[in-house]
Amino acid sequence: MDLVFLGTGAGVPAKGRNVSAIALQLLEERGVTWLFDCGEATQHQILYTSVKPRRIEKIFITHLHGDHIFGLPGLLGSRSFQGGETPLTVYGPKGIQEFIDVAMRVSTTHVKYPIHVVEIEEEGIIFADEQFIVEAGRLSHGIECFGYRIIEKDIAGPLLVDKLLALGIKPGPAFKLLKAGHSITLEDGTQLHGKDYVGAPQKGRIVTILGDTRYCETSIRLAKNADVLVHEATFAAADEEQAYNYFHSTTAQAAEVAKKANVGCLIMTHISSRYQGEDSEKLLQEARDIFPYTELAEDLKQFLMTR
Amino acid sequence: MDLVFLGTGAGVPAKGRNVSAIALQLLEERGVTWLFDCGEATQHQILYTSVKPRRIEKIFITHLHGDHIFGLPGLLGSRSFQGGETPLTVYGPKGIQEFIDVAMRVSTTHVKYPIHVVEIEEEGIIFADEQFIVEAGRLSHGIECFGYRIIEKDIAGPLLVDKLLALGIKPGPAFKLLKAGHSITLEDGTQLHGKDYVGAPQKGRIVTILGDTRYCETSIRLAKNADVLVHEATFAAADEEQAYNYFHSTTAQAAEVAKKANVGCLIMTHISSRYQGEDSEKLLQEARDIFPYTELAEDLKQFLMTR
Ligand SMILES: [Zn+2]
Ligand SMILES: [Zn+2]
Repeated sequence: MDLVFLGTGAGVPAKGRNVSAIALQLLEERGVTWLFDCGEATQHQILYTSVKPRRIEKIFITHLHGDHIFGLPGLLGSRSFQGGETPLTVYGPKGIQEFIDVAMRVSTTHVKYPIHVVEIEEEGIIFADEQFIVEAGRLSHGIECFGYRIIEKDIAGPLLVDKLLALGIKPGPAFKLLKAGHSITLEDGTQLHGKDYVGAPQKGRIVTILGDTRYCETSIRLAKNADVLVHEATFAAADEEQAYNYFHSTTAQAAEVAKKANVGCLIMTHISSRYQGEDSEKLLQEARDIFPYTELAEDLKQFLMTR
Repeated sequence: MDLVFLGTGAGVPAKGRNVSAIALQLLEERGVTWLFDCGEATQHQILYTSVKPRRIEKIFITHLHGDHIFGLPGLLGSRSFQGGETPLTVYGPKGIQEFIDVAMRVSTTHVKYPIHVVEIEEEGIIFADEQFIVEAGRLSHGIECFGYRIIEKDIAGPLLVDKLLALGIKPGPAFKLLKAGHSITLEDGTQLHGKDYVGAPQKGRIVTILGDTRYCETSIRLAKNADVLVHEATFAAADEEQAYNYFHSTTAQAAEVAKKANVGCLIMTHISSRYQGEDSEKLLQEARDIFPYTELAEDLKQFLMTR
């Protein structure tokens, strides 16, 4: 599991930071990548990373501002051109369906895979399968804007094969039953219980990726005990009034959310182009003064998430 | 007058060549820039040039394929963000209005200048003022696709001031009348005729910029005696069948059009990413064998057009 930041700037593209997009790579977990937002030239940024468009399984749009969606039609087209044939689902606020439909129809873009669009109307769980649960919460950005909490389910512990072999039990149906937690009775009448022959389960990870937002309680709820929180920090701590007026957050507010939510690590992104060069150190320090485990995202930077 | 190539690739963005966009800078002529097509990340490419989004007065779209229009919503938004307040007109095939309207509405992009959209329905003159005439012609690309012939009107010759001063005539109303081609009568009864006191007019230039197309007669007509012809050359000369099947042209066909149209110079663009590195030399040579005054466009390359 890793995060690749494809665009870490705010509003308009700049030489150093492109507009928003983040790839959550779940290659070991399910052989796919999930994308969060897709600003213009996201597909261009991808050319400089290991991200493969045909592996993108889901795209979660936080909100419909241009710097978060204008790269979508191009990416959808290129995914097909580059061999993508598996279905793709786009989640986002109401309006995303019309944007995609019109862009694809007007440009006569025909893709070789099914595109499902899910317009989120209520907070709560928007996706769940055997492996992952994704929950959406409403942030505070002037227009409809969602944050996403991605919960990996706990992974069952491994079967303690050596222990069973030592008892003279051979791989076969007995192994399967024990691994699934059942009990079995041996020919001599001995009872074996699954729980005694299965190691401790591996705790699933939690990643919270928020859209643009003012400081708000929903952020804290979505980020509660997450391993990683990605929070916008459009402004420096001193520019709190401006942040409020433009429906954005400061570094200090992002750190405050991280602290209150007790996350493992905070990654700040969506940095205004007014902060250049050495300002980065300052932005980072402001946040670390409040929450020490803070990083600043940069375009094309990759963060590994070990268990 | 100069041309800046912002994207010279075909279909999908590649590291070396972005998707289509060309800036025709008319800075001395009218202090503005005209853009031809606006593929995704055109505004990103502009960051590395002297082109100013707020100076863009007109955008001519050749056709609605994604690689020619997906950069439009972002550029329109950024033009406002970067201080653009003067009106902007977009010309293109039917459908361009809906694409712009929906992208701007869904993303709640509010610009501080009027956007006029002109959907071209018939071949012929689509714009004319004191300085320029723009003519559109229908090309052969499977979908509606236009080529544009930009005609600069001849510029009236300069008033021969020294000749008038030598006759003892002072700057004033007499100068104005003569420059405008009128005749005047001096106090001693002498008649002076404007035509005798105005230098030769400067010939206006003609630039022809075509959209994606098979070899076709309309290209030759639009390019007739142009100073510069920009023609696509998606394929090498040997790949003529493929070019035909995909509604594109080869280097040799672009050169053939240039030759038949008797243009001053041919610039080939829209080069498939299958041709890399040394292939460029080969593509260029194929065209020069037919029409020697041929250049190959590269991203960010600028071509000056002196009189
Ligand atoms: Zn944003
Ligand atoms: Zn094209």
